[in-house]
Amino acid sequence: MSLCIFFAAPAVWDEYCDILPALLTEAGIAAEVVTEAPDPAAVDYIIYAPSAPLQDFTPFTRCKAVLSLWAGVERIVGNATLTQPLCRMVDTGLTEGMVEWVVGHTLRHHLGMDRHIVNPGHVWDPTCPPLARERVVAMLGMGALGTACARALAALNFQILGWSRTSKVVEGINCLHGDAGLEAALRRADIVVTLLPKTPETENLLDARRLGWMKRDAVIVNPGRGALIDDAALLAALDAGALGHATLDVFRVEPLPADHPFWSHPRVTVTPHIAADTRATGAARVLVENIRRAEAGQDLMNLVDRARGY
Amino acid sequence: MSLCIFFAAPAVWDEYCDILPALLTEAGIAAEVVTEAPDPAAVDYIIYAPSAPLQDFTPFTRCKAVLSLWAGVERIVGNATLTQPLCRMVDTGLTEGMVEWVVGHTLRHHLGMDRHIVNPGHVWDPTCPPLARERVVAMLGMGALGTACARALAALNFQILGWSRTSKVVEGINCLHGDAGLEAALRRADIVVTLLPKTPETENLLDARRLGWMKRDAVIVNPGRGALIDDAALLAALDAGALGHATLDVFRVEPLPADHPFWSHPRVTVTPHIAADTRATGAARVLVENIRRAEAGQDLMNLVDRARGY
Repeated sequence: MSLCIFFAAPAVWDEYCDILPALLTEAGIAAEVVTEAPDPAAVDYIIYAPSAPLQDFTPFTRCKAVLSLWAGVERIVGNATLTQPLCRMVDTGLTEGMVEWVVGHTLRHHLGMDRHIVNPGHVWDPTCPPLARERVVAMLGMGALGTACARALAALNFQILGWSRTSKVVEGINCLHGDAGLEAALRRADIVVTLLPKTPETENLLDARRLGWMKRDAVIVNPGRGALIDDAALLAALDAGALGHATLDVFRVEPLPADHPFWSHPRVTVTPHIAADTRATGAARVLVENIRRAEAGQDLMNLVDRARGY
Repeated sequence: MSLCIFFAAPAVWDEYCDILPALLTEAGIAAEVVTEAPDPAAVDYIIYAPSAPLQDFTPFTRCKAVLSLWAGVERIVGNATLTQPLCRMVDTGLTEGMVEWVVGHTLRHHLGMDRHIVNPGHVWDPTCPPLARERVVAMLGMGALGTACARALAALNFQILGWSRTSKVVEGINCLHGDAGLEAALRRADIVVTLLPKTPETENLLDARRLGWMKRDAVIVNPGRGALIDDAALLAALDAGALGHATLDVFRVEPLPADHPFWSHPRVTVTPHIAADTRATGAARVLVENIRRAEAGQDLMNLVDRARGY
């Protein structure tokens, strides 16, 4: 019998309408992909984006899994009607894009590129930057994305301090955890990358007190979540010269409002939420593989733990 | 008894005056580092740069080794007065610095960072760049430095086309050679990195004709030698919109003269010959380790074979 897959993310249907049915066929899965579900009780799987109109999952009584297209699930994990197994997107394209953005901006700050890219005085100052092996990068968040970025930076000889809320062991990476570990990481780091999920525990993780632990020339690179940083405290630290720079890809409100002080602050670089985008080709493979697993009675990949919130 | 170490490279003494004595002490070597040698027969070791005034090594009758600060010894290997053991500098820092600069600027162009670093209109355009796996980087020059850069970029998933004048096999890298190979590499590349030595064959390698093979949006990244590129042809191609950008670290005349059009060209980024420098910290460790070895009767590292000339 053919499966009914409800694609409930209309904004990106264009990107998936060809590739998804093709990959299902390739995987030998008989399925119909629909963008409307007049009979919710007939739906086997829901493909979902947290920004989509669908909010009440109650009528989807047969649904075996809700497969999100987003890595972050904080906007749906609190939805009490969503009782089906929920998977977040972990797609190699997303990881690759994130690694490229994080390594790129880490190297940019490490090399001091900005003063060459914008050099109206035509200053020739042949002072070499230190080597990466002399720089400490704190990776706040050692999930799939943080670990991939940490490994890529370690391969370029950066000294990595991985940090997570609870103890983690990642081969080849010096890992710290808990409050004391956070203080140690922030005090030592030249560059701090924030790649944590948004949870009640991580909101405003970098507040005025913790920003105060950082070195005066240190740089924050945030491709994680806007809410990880207290915006006002960050601006105050930058204004006071207590922090070198912040390169931010994510914001509490997106697009970043035109009057937000980040736009014109000389020590802030805004990138428009491009660090990790779900690319349809890679994501469609992950969706199909999860459906294949569910149908074969195997464990789902990237299943969200509701208690932890990610 | 304390050793007498003659530091005969006055131009860079500032960089070594603190670190070198400190590392000698750390290694337990009693030594005095001097910048003048009124009694050449009292000198135990000479630290040397081929550009230094010292040319006659005859009076240094007790000298156990001449330790060059340069990787290349072509300017001293023919000096008949230099009969002492001669070591060239092999400092991993030089390769590391080059890899960091090349990977950093490749990622900068790949990610289109400049339009975020300089964004006076506060434009929020969340168009994602392609993934590195969709970009072709041509590495012109597959010596030690080019190969190290190619491997680092390949590890980030860039498609690498290595090119050298004569055929080379480098594991894991698609290598081309000769004129036909150069044309193929330039026609396909999104980013072209030039890391060739300056020889009569490589001078003006990128001339008007070959620049014309490149894609209109392609970028040149040159940390090799200024003479590899025909400056006038490059400027003409950039002005005509036939090329996207050039990021240049090396020039025919350095410092780049204040009136050179590269300085103010909107499609040129000048970096002040910082891609690969012998860093005093790393080099000083190599010097001290060689002195320690010589004093302990062990083999010197990086000893030049006079017959082979390197």
